[in-house]
Amino acid sequence: MEQPICLVGIGKIAVDQHVPAIANSPDWTLAATVSRAGTVDGVPSYSDFDAMLVERDDIRTVSLCLPPVPRYDYAVRAIAAGRNVMLEKPPGATLAEVQDLTTRAAANGVTLYTTWHSRMAKGVAAAKAFLADKTITSGYIDWREDVRRWHPEQEWVFEPGGMGVFDPGINALSILTDVLPRPVHITSALLNFPENRFTPIAAEVAFSENLTMTLDWLKDGQQMWEMILRAGDDQVHLSEGGNRCVINGTEVAGSVLDEYPALYDQMARLVSSGASEVDLAPMIHVADAMTLGKRVTVAPFSF
Amino acid sequence: MEQPICLVGIGKIAVDQHVPAIANSPDWTLAATVSRAGTVDGVPSYSDFDAMLVERDDIRTVSLCLPPVPRYDYAVRAIAAGRNVMLEKPPGATLAEVQDLTTRAAANGVTLYTTWHSRMAKGVAAAKAFLADKTITSGYIDWREDVRRWHPEQEWVFEPGGMGVFDPGINALSILTDVLPRPVHITSALLNFPENRFTPIAAEVAFSENLTMTLDWLKDGQQMWEMILRAGDDQVHLSEGGNRCVINGTEVAGSVLDEYPALYDQMARLVSSGASEVDLAPMIHVADAMTLGKRVTVAPFSF
Repeated sequence: MEQPICLVGIGKIAVDQHVPAIANSPDWTLAATVSRAGTVDGVPSYSDFDAMLVERDDIRTVSLCLPPVPRYDYAVRAIAAGRNVMLEKPPGATLAEVQDLTTRAAANGVTLYTTWHSRMAKGVAAAKAFLADKTITSGYIDWREDVRRWHPEQEWVFEPGGMGVFDPGINALSILTDVLPRPVHITSALLNFPENRFTPIAAEVAFSENLTMTLDWLKDGQQMWEMILRAGDDQVHLSEGGNRCVINGTEVAGSVLDEYPALYDQMARLVSSGASEVDLAPMIHVADAMTLGKRVTVAPFSF
Repeated sequence: MEQPICLVGIGKIAVDQHVPAIANSPDWTLAATVSRAGTVDGVPSYSDFDAMLVERDDIRTVSLCLPPVPRYDYAVRAIAAGRNVMLEKPPGATLAEVQDLTTRAAANGVTLYTTWHSRMAKGVAAAKAFLADKTITSGYIDWREDVRRWHPEQEWVFEPGGMGVFDPGINALSILTDVLPRPVHITSALLNFPENRFTPIAAEVAFSENLTMTLDWLKDGQQMWEMILRAGDDQVHLSEGGNRCVINGTEVAGSVLDEYPALYDQMARLVSSGASEVDLAPMIHVADAMTLGKRVTVAPFSF
């Protein structure tokens, strides 16, 4: 049976991914939206989140697609009003605020789900299963995309807390932290900050276990989201953002659901079992890179 | 009975604090040191840590006073060799590496203690007890010291991972996270980076619950390590880095032991009970500040 859900923050990612995923979900019906500007045809829209919480007692679950900085306040109000909460990635602007939300969700007996959509990419589960009993010996991540294409005019990505190139980079990190048999840690990082911006536009990161990561947000032409992980003579190659998995030269069959449908499927399972799923590992690597990283100033950026 | 302990990294903090604390401890005897340069009169010194681990099977506990960046590798080797490990603050250069050490210590059945010396300042326990059932309504931290006096020529504090002014600031955060009845999180931060350095030399940080923090590493004259926490009409004033506590205008009696003696006392208790104590909360706030903070370039700094 479909349950009503409210989507908050009707921007690009909501329209591109959340709305169609909910529309096609056997578990959810989009019963309301909350946004300053965006709406979804045929769905009641609110501009005041608190009014929605009061008026729509039938809606027990909200999905927050706002940018990370404002998201915390919405999550607090939703949890206080007894609603289950699903958070777009990254789950917040700070680690401490997500820990706080976790405590609040437990105290209020609601589900909190810190989603990592790239973990649901079709090749990830196969990579994880293959690597489970292996020891990683080396590897690299190559994550290059065009910020103008994926975040057109979204100034918040370059504002403090917007994470810059770690906004896509955290997708790679969410896959990495999922498929690795043992955790790694960052040993050094080079961060390129445009001279007129507050977040990095490119990064070179080194991890333990001979892993490296290149992030670039100025890639034109063919976009690239690749990851190679080696364990002795074995090699796992994840491409297309984790959606294709080639193990030792042979492509393996992937999961059935696309990323966002899989997230909403998982949210339905969490809500029905009264469980939460919170994993901060990808965000910890970003915070570590920002703490340990060597900052280099590069050319100014404008959209 | 006194147990042998090895001190690694004989620099300023070791000489100023660790050596006298161990000398006066009823629990510990300084049985060896490991350092590139420093030694302690009358104590066998090693320059090769692995050699010490092999030769000195009698020493079951090591205390690491190295700067945060090199500390992880020493901790890994000590844990692998079945030694209990005590870490100076901050416990590492990254959050992920300390999580990794925690896993390794548990797997090897040894004690890991991430010390926070300022939590042992004499007024902290009284402040914590008083605030336990209160709700914080506002407060501020004012932590201003002279880097040239406390870290003379220690270039590592301005290298990536050295944390800059958060090296003293994390002391304030270690107190804050200990005495608060409920956790807070950073909502904004302004970070001043000298144009020739990789870590901030000053910061203004805002937290939830109307808390603010000023960090300044260029304070000459009277040094200042103050914290005011208000809960409605109640006020707790911690001064001298937490060593004095005035509650509602009346100074309260403090703990007996000084900071470092109290850390070694706690380490003895942890080892004898086979327990670990790991708390990353102060370091999470630093990582959050570095992730969320707005960077401002200020005048170059030289010692």
